[in-house]
Amino acid sequence: MELYFAPLACSLATRIALYDANISATFNQVDLARRRTADDRDFLTLNPLGQVPTLRTESGDILTENGAILQYVADSAPASGLAPTDRVGRAKLHQWLSFLGTELHKGIFALQFDRATTDALTAYARTKIASRFAILERHLTGREFLLDQFTVADAYLTTLLNWTRKTGPNLADWPALAAYHQRMLARPSVARAVAEEFALYTAELAHAK
Amino acid sequence: MELYFAPLACSLATRIALYDANISATFNQVDLARRRTADDRDFLTLNPLGQVPTLRTESGDILTENGAILQYVADSAPASGLAPTDRVGRAKLHQWLSFLGTELHKGIFALQFDRATTDALTAYARTKIASRFAILERHLTGREFLLDQFTVADAYLTTLLNWTRKTGPNLADWPALAAYHQRMLARPSVARAVAEEFALYTAELAHAK
Repeated sequence: MELYFAPLACSLATRIALYDANISATFNQVDLARRRTADDRDFLTLNPLGQVPTLRTESGDILTENGAILQYVADSAPASGLAPTDRVGRAKLHQWLSFLGTELHKGIFALQFDRATTDALTAYARTKIASRFAILERHLTGREFLLDQFTVADAYLTTLLNWTRKTGPNLADWPALAAYHQRMLARPSVARAVAEEFALYTAELAHAK
Repeated sequence: MELYFAPLACSLATRIALYDANISATFNQVDLARRRTADDRDFLTLNPLGQVPTLRTESGDILTENGAILQYVADSAPASGLAPTDRVGRAKLHQWLSFLGTELHKGIFALQFDRATTDALTAYARTKIASRFAILERHLTGREFLLDQFTVADAYLTTLLNWTRKTGPNLADWPALAAYHQRMLARPSVARAVAEEFALYTAELAHAK
């Protein structure tokens, strides 16, 4: 598998999953501003929306969309438990991946990260925070993970929570969620993935200057 | 199964799936403005975001999120083909459900349907249409369905395309997509579901006046 990624973008979740399950993959860093891959190809020919993650599977197929890629990676190592295989467990995973993708990622963060964002757009996005974060806070009170064990949904949520350092809100207002975030960051696979991508992120920033 | 729905909302996709696979279910119409179910319960106790579809499964569990509910229903009738069971096919289904949920539903339509929408928000949402609809137009040129046969992704996309009559854009600008929409609307399960919910929708409007 070859993962097209950008440092600390939502593709980080897939790197976490790969490390957590010890799945080998190659990583191809995309320059999102120039839409070029590390091997200097036009990224839009792989993904017309220019979004990471994008995955090239072992058979050469291109897979897009975070929720799809995370499950594909998890299903390549079913014993990892990164994605439940029983019907109810998988349905709950679908529910969380969809919630994270639509309500948090697209509904709150993407509006603020968009190159065309405005104060009005950011203000609108922030009106959605309290109700969505309250759901997570309630669910994670007394729970270690979103499901019964660490899954790709946790890899995704951790990645999204990292972004609050840039956009807000202050996680201190949601203590169970803040504790969850710290707990996930201490997990070896997460710590390794975040450390590596943080280094790539700072290098990218320095290069852009 | 009990489906909490609102007429012509995205819960229509689940009704289509149920009809298409001949799965029996009960339907509970939610008054989204008052957040009350048909049996006059507070809908927010079932789904804190007050969103349809919400599904009560046979075991009494509550499942939320359209992509999760659609797959749960499809997997209750695996022979229907509403959701592929092979790994690559399921990954492609995940990809399309995620694309529809994030890029189209949340990224374009939800911004326009939000009670707090503004001209600026609507204008922003519309800047996303051309690139997203072009992906569908290219994919559906020469194809009958999003995947190799009718799946819950088609039920979802049909539901979203119905909304263009209210919000735009004009589907005539995307001929393959327009033809696909007409083809789907002619499918008996879709025609029945749309006709029934259109009647409920007009009744709801009349009642609100």
